Amino acid sequence: MRVICAPNALKGCLSAVDAAAALSRGARRAGTDIEALEMPIADGGDGTLEVLAKVLGGELIEKTVLGPANREVSSSYLILPDGRAVVELARASGIKLLQREDLRPLTAHTFGVGQLILDAIERGATEVILALGGSASTDCGTGLLKALGVKFLDAQGSELELGGAALKSLLLVDITAVSEKVLSTKFTVLCDVENPLCGEKGTVAIFAPQKGAQTQDLLELTLAIENFSKVISQQFSKDLANTPRCGVAGGTSSGMYAILNANLVSGFDYVAQVLGVEDKIRNCDLVLTSEGRLDSQTLDGKGPHGVALIAKRSNVPVVGLFGQYDFFARESFQDFSAIQSIANGPNSLEQMLESATERLEFGAENSVRFAQALRRSSKTS
Amino acid sequence: MRVICAPNALKGCLSAVDAAAALSRGARRAGTDIEALEMPIADGGDGTLEVLAKVLGGELIEKTVLGPANREVSSSYLILPDGRAVVELARASGIKLLQREDLRPLTAHTFGVGQLILDAIERGATEVILALGGSASTDCGTGLLKALGVKFLDAQGSELELGGAALKSLLLVDITAVSEKVLSTKFTVLCDVENPLCGEKGTVAIFAPQKGAQTQDLLELTLAIENFSKVISQQFSKDLANTPRCGVAGGTSSGMYAILNANLVSGFDYVAQVLGVEDKIRNCDLVLTSEGRLDSQTLDGKGPHGVALIAKRSNVPVVGLFGQYDFFARESFQDFSAIQSIANGPNSLEQMLESATERLEFGAENSVRFAQALRRSSKTS
Repeated sequence: MRVICAPNALKGCLSAVDAAAALSRGARRAGTDIEALEMPIADGGDGTLEVLAKVLGGELIEKTVLGPANREVSSSYLILPDGRAVVELARASGIKLLQREDLRPLTAHTFGVGQLILDAIERGATEVILALGGSASTDCGTGLLKALGVKFLDAQGSELELGGAALKSLLLVDITAVSEKVLSTKFTVLCDVENPLCGEKGTVAIFAPQKGAQTQDLLELTLAIENFSKVISQQFSKDLANTPRCGVAGGTSSGMYAILNANLVSGFDYVAQVLGVEDKIRNCDLVLTSEGRLDSQTLDGKGPHGVALIAKRSNVPVVGLFGQYDFFARESFQDFSAIQSIANGPNSLEQMLESATERLEFGAENSVRFAQALRRSSKTS
Repeated sequence: MRVICAPNALKGCLSAVDAAAALSRGARRAGTDIEALEMPIADGGDGTLEVLAKVLGGELIEKTVLGPANREVSSSYLILPDGRAVVELARASGIKLLQREDLRPLTAHTFGVGQLILDAIERGATEVILALGGSASTDCGTGLLKALGVKFLDAQGSELELGGAALKSLLLVDITAVSEKVLSTKFTVLCDVENPLCGEKGTVAIFAPQKGAQTQDLLELTLAIENFSKVISQQFSKDLANTPRCGVAGGTSSGMYAILNANLVSGFDYVAQVLGVEDKIRNCDLVLTSEGRLDSQTLDGKGPHGVALIAKRSNVPVVGLFGQYDFFARESFQDFSAIQSIANGPNSLEQMLESATERLEFGAENSVRFAQALRRSSKTS
């Protein structure tokens, strides 16, 4: 039996690579005839670089940049063998780089990501693959763009402070200082969600609370983002409000799209194509996927649900093993053949985190054993 | 696809009948082609009477008896259509009848069970099926036997007090006052565990702590039970120490065996035979079973494990859905095709209890959908 182990990372717990290894160990435990293929996936969010590096190789470049809360952070990006660069926002401006008490929803920024991109371009990269997701900021990518030479000016012609809240004063974007090299770079932005920039499914409403925004912050950010959207629409003739995926990573996607003509793509689809997920799934007997939490976000273009859709199209059974799923949103799970939690009873989050690897192994072994039993029984009946 | 839903009761939460109904509702949700058969099982413990009544019919007789802590309790037993009686210890002397603070490990007794048995015999029953398990006492059934006329005497010739601790003073058992009717009754004792009376797997060591016994109580009870075993062995030429199943329900099985020649049988095997479990499983495609907790006790002749063994013999896949299982005892689960918890993430016990029905439904639906997906995929490959 051929089993594909295609998990996402379990956020804050296990990388996709480690999760895939755990699933395949568990699967192989079910019998010597089990061929288990590790195929860690990513959806453009935190962990995407690691997955692409595993498949495509390349050189990791280390660089210290200005972090999202204005402290320097050690970061890195990838130069692929073909010269393209892979930059992951979470490594320079990610929320994972901050303690809870350091969250500054109004002023957190993406400047460090821009520093990485600039470094890659200066080293000769003519295409940058930018994995978004896991951001601490809601600055529409203006920090990143500033690092690349873009100036965001207020009515007095002064440059705005870094961070989302300052965008309420934006009047004009000045790109005259951006180098030709930067302007001619191809940007492919991997998006882990489909959310628009504004509105009730917009980046402020859905993601800013996770970044520490309280009610008053949400109001400020909403006004700021709406002003950004208005100024950009007028100046660059791009309708940010109605373009899907403009709300990714605090709107970083919107700035990249409007000002640098970035191509906003589904991170999962991009990674899946690089990995050859569809072909591999078509030729296997069972797919195991996983993520920390299965919720409505997961179902919005993220990894395990993408895997489930491919498996479904290919008529291959697919089991989702999750730390947690929303028990009362049953109808959302119809694209999986089955979903399970890796809890073994009344567990605390800590209990689950500390033995997540063993739990994934066990879940994988169980699923494969069930599949084996079903095969045996249908052969003889 | 034919699915058999054969759960045990989920102790303190759902009866086997209700659990079977939940599993079958969930299974049927997976498709209109699903035929789900409800086959609640029992292992001789608490809930056995309800399961037998569902299959065999009969009349429930209500009777007030002396409960395990000397308060009267409303109890009941079953007269089957063929005249045999089914008496369930838990309904007269069960731990479920007591609050935690009412537990009296030294003095709790089984007198009420004897009152039910006597009532049944007086109504003409010539065979009594006695379901043990769920007891509050460690009295070796002496309370029960006293109600039937047996006298337990000390060195002064006085009758002992009720309860296990008093057995340390036992010198002689006097059965001269027991009626011929009682002595000629056939007793079939359904045992839910295999434990012996004494020793490290004996009734005191394994079960008394659940009944409130502290260290000092355990010592007292051990001495008392050993004295009982010695007196009985001498007087009735029965070797209680080495007879399996003598440690069931605080040793109630041992007293029944020694003094009334009761037949100690596996409760699960008995119920399974009455229900025709083996035949039914042989003719189905998938078996679902369940219990509140899967642990080493479950693997000791109890319900779901018994179901799993039958399914395995019949080459039918069997999934165990548990409130909780011991994650680190993986090797114990090899007789199930798969086991799962019905937890959906980090859950409190209360969360799990309050939606146990929905969780069983969901688990059943998931298992059946997985089986369907595997069937579909193997048909086309």
